[in-house]
Amino acid sequence: MTQPLRLRKNAERRLKSGHLWLYSNEIDTDATPLKAFEPGTQAIIEAANGRAMGIAYVNPHSLICARIVSRDTSTGLDRSLLVHRFKQALSLRQRFYSRPFYRLVHGEGDLLPGLVIDRFDDVVVVQLNTLGMERVRGDIIDALEKVLSPRAIVLRGDSAGRRLEKLDAAVEVVKGSLDQPLPMEENGVRFVADVLGGQKTGWFFDHRDNRAWLNGLVAGKRVLDVFSYVGGWGVQAAAHGARDVVCVDSSAAALSRVAENAALNGVEARVSTLEGDAFEVMAQLKARGEQFDAVVLDPPAFIRKRKDIPAGERAYSRLNREAMRLLDRDGLLVSASCSMHLADERLIDIVRGAARHQDRHAQLIYQGHQGSDHPVHPAIPETAYLKALGVRIFRD
Amino acid sequence: MTQPLRLRKNAERRLKSGHLWLYSNEIDTDATPLKAFEPGTQAIIEAANGRAMGIAYVNPHSLICARIVSRDTSTGLDRSLLVHRFKQALSLRQRFYSRPFYRLVHGEGDLLPGLVIDRFDDVVVVQLNTLGMERVRGDIIDALEKVLSPRAIVLRGDSAGRRLEKLDAAVEVVKGSLDQPLPMEENGVRFVADVLGGQKTGWFFDHRDNRAWLNGLVAGKRVLDVFSYVGGWGVQAAAHGARDVVCVDSSAAALSRVAENAALNGVEARVSTLEGDAFEVMAQLKARGEQFDAVVLDPPAFIRKRKDIPAGERAYSRLNREAMRLLDRDGLLVSASCSMHLADERLIDIVRGAARHQDRHAQLIYQGHQGSDHPVHPAIPETAYLKALGVRIFRD
Repeated sequence: MTQPLRLRKNAERRLKSGHLWLYSNEIDTDATPLKAFEPGTQAIIEAANGRAMGIAYVNPHSLICARIVSRDTSTGLDRSLLVHRFKQALSLRQRFYSRPFYRLVHGEGDLLPGLVIDRFDDVVVVQLNTLGMERVRGDIIDALEKVLSPRAIVLRGDSAGRRLEKLDAAVEVVKGSLDQPLPMEENGVRFVADVLGGQKTGWFFDHRDNRAWLNGLVAGKRVLDVFSYVGGWGVQAAAHGARDVVCVDSSAAALSRVAENAALNGVEARVSTLEGDAFEVMAQLKARGEQFDAVVLDPPAFIRKRKDIPAGERAYSRLNREAMRLLDRDGLLVSASCSMHLADERLIDIVRGAARHQDRHAQLIYQGHQGSDHPVHPAIPETAYLKALGVRIFRD
Repeated sequence: MTQPLRLRKNAERRLKSGHLWLYSNEIDTDATPLKAFEPGTQAIIEAANGRAMGIAYVNPHSLICARIVSRDTSTGLDRSLLVHRFKQALSLRQRFYSRPFYRLVHGEGDLLPGLVIDRFDDVVVVQLNTLGMERVRGDIIDALEKVLSPRAIVLRGDSAGRRLEKLDAAVEVVKGSLDQPLPMEENGVRFVADVLGGQKTGWFFDHRDNRAWLNGLVAGKRVLDVFSYVGGWGVQAAAHGARDVVCVDSSAAALSRVAENAALNGVEARVSTLEGDAFEVMAQLKARGEQFDAVVLDPPAFIRKRKDIPAGERAYSRLNREAMRLLDRDGLLVSASCSMHLADERLIDIVRGAARHQDRHAQLIYQGHQGSDHPVHPAIPETAYLKALGVRIFRD
């Protein structure tokens, strides 16, 4: 028999709207003390009037103290529900992608709070970002086995989410063995991904559509890829005909992958790399009088918490201003942000301000978001985090 | 010598941000009475301290009493500036489109306030939506002649903007002659457009990318196109392999074009039409037990003015709820809105609410906007009006 967790009066409203999270201050702790729950166990969520609203897993030590896994109170998070949800998730991806490289499970967006799974053909990389998901780790592996039967399963324990839930940071291959790095493809371009040691799961699938958009515009152009990581944007641009691509990153290891990825596609002669701080490298390029037809800015999140917003916005402003200085009279800026706390409108305004600062005109010609393998839960704004603006910057 | 128009103190801030509009309550009418300006003439805009900020055309009878045409006070809106701006606009479109069918000039988004020009190969259709643009009508025709040398130029005087500025509503062919309807293409599919009698300029170019997105998902599917007009969505879906398409519109003339457009692409056997009120037709379909794999909602603007927001949002809610009733267990909803006053987040919330109302899950898998031939001016939110959400609607 599953323990009940009782909400305070009116606290059920967000749940009714479709949201999946409960905050600890919404719990009627007199009726159902949070500390009575073993961390990670599942509970029946009850409205103040006692009506059962669904099943959630509980972590008394987290600000988000419970996350709904099912609205059917007879169905908890187990192997059977996981198989069902994985199949639902897979069928969505199979509508969009003919090749087996994508985010298979996007947490709340796939009704699986705290679970992220990226697929690299027959290898899957799993992030269990909450204690509730950690507790069903065995079921997750079994369900993946049943739905996909992958050659290898990697658990990436080194995510920020796990640190918040005080989980260990181990990276493990829990099934099969790996020849690293793994070959993969995006938009018809070949790459290798380091799923054990690379950032996050080894690849950022979320910008696929935005890169595809840029790919259509770069033939014969000179492109600067700032915060290039392993060349997701830059190498694709070169493979789609860019005349000359410069990738900038602070990581020598990432830039060595850029070279490897360029060579895989036979475009190594048109891709070069510059190691260093993005702002410093851009200043050096400017000092040398270098100009580009297109600049891509795909920085790490400058705003991780709400309190970082002012400083983060200043950093985005400075970055966009510096990028515009490197554009020709009539150039293209791709300005991305993965900061969930930076609204689309704010990024547009930052680009507007940067253009005005240099007395240039800006035309917003593209507003991109995360790809369809990163579905947004419409009741949970936090599941929408990525934006990529395409902006023509020109002088009159 | 151009007359000055003096701003009140601090009223120059929005202009400095890049905006192009001045409201009548921002004018220092003691220094420069608005009624001293002949409607449509150009003026030098001066900040309260006398600093010249640019050239605008003035309409003392309009709430937006002046619109900036140039930040260079030596350059007014004349044939030479129009040629320059048309060339800038054309070069943007030529980067994106291999075929000559697009919006060539998108008003403020192309730094030409009040001017809209759509291109159908060698025929251009012009909307002069303000008195200021009407005054340079001859220069506009000359500049088009110089840049594009079109076979025919059509002036569509029957726009809502012109009514607001109390301009006449004539539709004229001011150059050449027309064999109607005009052949055109979008996303590789053939259509005809009635540029003299059709809605707006005869075609809605703004959804091109959103339709392309849907086209990739419809092979073998059954699609309902609500507010189909001449079949922009539906006929394209059929041409991209949809098994069965039903187009709904209240206009018999539009539906007869749907049939014509379907036949042009050899898909007439897979496209049928239903004439009537969208809500009524959807209710009838529901009563007959009809189900679809995908439903497209591309209604006219339900919110034309700010005061229409509450009623308009209710109409969008009802529409989205009715559409979801016609979807199979796991279906795709394309929910569009061209209401500038409806924010993206509001439409997302409307879709969320409609899905919850029927106890269905919703995954937002696409957020589309107007195409690149409708550039957004980043200082003028009004230039961004179109959204198209792609939402997977499913039962658990």
